[in-house]
Amino acid sequence: MRVTALAGGTGAAKFLRGLTAVIAPEQVTVIGNTGDDALIWGLHVSPDLDTVIYALAGLLDESKGWGIRGDSFRCLAAMATLGRETWFNLGDRDLATHLFRTERLRTGESLSQVTDALRRTLGVGSRILPASDAPVSTRILTPEGWLGFQEFFVREKARPEVLDVAYAGADLAHPAPGVLEAIEMATAILVCPSNPITSIGPILAVPGIVDALGAARGEILAISPIVGDAPVSGPAGKLMAARGLSVSATGVARFYRPWLDTLVLDRRDEALLSSLQELGVTPVLADTLMTDREKAEALARRVLELLT
Amino acid sequence: MRVTALAGGTGAAKFLRGLTAVIAPEQVTVIGNTGDDALIWGLHVSPDLDTVIYALAGLLDESKGWGIRGDSFRCLAAMATLGRETWFNLGDRDLATHLFRTERLRTGESLSQVTDALRRTLGVGSRILPASDAPVSTRILTPEGWLGFQEFFVREKARPEVLDVAYAGADLAHPAPGVLEAIEMATAILVCPSNPITSIGPILAVPGIVDALGAARGEILAISPIVGDAPVSGPAGKLMAARGLSVSATGVARFYRPWLDTLVLDRRDEALLSSLQELGVTPVLADTLMTDREKAEALARRVLELLT
Repeated sequence: MRVTALAGGTGAAKFLRGLTAVIAPEQVTVIGNTGDDALIWGLHVSPDLDTVIYALAGLLDESKGWGIRGDSFRCLAAMATLGRETWFNLGDRDLATHLFRTERLRTGESLSQVTDALRRTLGVGSRILPASDAPVSTRILTPEGWLGFQEFFVREKARPEVLDVAYAGADLAHPAPGVLEAIEMATAILVCPSNPITSIGPILAVPGIVDALGAARGEILAISPIVGDAPVSGPAGKLMAARGLSVSATGVARFYRPWLDTLVLDRRDEALLSSLQELGVTPVLADTLMTDREKAEALARRVLELLT
Repeated sequence: MRVTALAGGTGAAKFLRGLTAVIAPEQVTVIGNTGDDALIWGLHVSPDLDTVIYALAGLLDESKGWGIRGDSFRCLAAMATLGRETWFNLGDRDLATHLFRTERLRTGESLSQVTDALRRTLGVGSRILPASDAPVSTRILTPEGWLGFQEFFVREKARPEVLDVAYAGADLAHPAPGVLEAIEMATAILVCPSNPITSIGPILAVPGIVDALGAARGEILAISPIVGDAPVSGPAGKLMAARGLSVSATGVARFYRPWLDTLVLDRRDEALLSSLQELGVTPVLADTLMTDREKAEALARRVLELLT
């Protein structure tokens, strides 16, 4: 069995940790979001890739959902003294990841090469592929103008009204080496419970990936990040609404419909089953709230049962 | 009174802290060594400039003679986990300085602009000028080949035999803006008790600086970093010997002789007075060991008395 997972940050990290506790990490390939990558203090930060790597390496600060457990913020404090913006929280240990990445990118390595080196060095058995080695930047149009995703989400705390979302650079991007093959060769393709617009959307925006999903032999199963009418975490609701999607599992299914086979949604959304079937998506109820590791593993087990 | 000081790292930092306790920091301009600048993890590190800035900002870890007091090394530990070289000790707070510098250099600012921004941000009243904005790299020839200064001094702990010393890039360098003027306009020029070969040498190697010293109106006074036949700290002895200089205050005077007026040397080197006079340098005895702040201030006071 070979599973390929499309992944954002926190929700994906929880699910993938559960999944790799249930099947061998080596059976899993992760295609990760780089739409919220940012240049912070001149360093290339890839928040979603790092959250997944840290989770699978057992380093993730699970209470925050990002960064390294027990990290300190002394460099950040010194940056404040130097008058630099410190709205993006980079921990002292976390900084090593960004220094490592930035230095290797500057020597000409690709983001996928650096990501592979990072995950191997940290002992992660699953392959982690950025969707593209080229920059694909999620841009959020607010009444004040366009913002980068981190500016919108972290600096502005996701407060501004969202008028539109764009994936800058996507038209010029190509899938990173291994991405299309990972979709083609997978026994199953899982879309993690991530923000459809800003976590999975930038992956889908890379030319060739939607076509590969459409042609995939493996079953494609998504886990809804929306329970009832609200996301489990993050700004997915606001962003889905801005793109004309209902903030519901049905809205998620509508976004993925062209290539989606199965949507796993929370038991309390049982009322949506018929509308999902009408969309041509097979709905499956499950406990989707991964409030601890056991629940994440149980969800992964449930998903794997559906595939066999 | 306007004092211009040529400065290396630790010894210079001690003396300059004493000097700026005795006269107003704004009366002092420091021309700093960049020969031991290094690219560490992709960051531009200027150890001597930083040591002087930290000392004058009251941040210096005085027990080590470098870095920031009370700094932690968590990023460094994480870098070790990632398999990166960690022989150069960058503290977490110290990192902020190098991130600040590197980012601004990449946007096209000069090293002197960045250095000025740093010292102002940290509340340092003295101007700190790198000798040149162009790279001047101290290279040490050992039996194993050429090493950068930090590779020789920190990584190899100054153990290899020294066959030669070169200042790579010096022939193409120009003095940074303000350097020649600071020499021309100074009431007095002080050469701090720094390693002549690898702290002051790279400054002197920048075309135009020796000529400016030769033409300077102000008195030029150096403080010997050598007491007896050994340097107070660091590898000056080995490097002076490699350049054919005796490891003594006389060797220091011989190196600076073309433009030096006065050499302040330690009282226990009284026996050298006549040989110094023969070199055409005025020798003055003083307590040169700055084992605490009071002694550094007393030495600064002694030097200022000589100038008036």
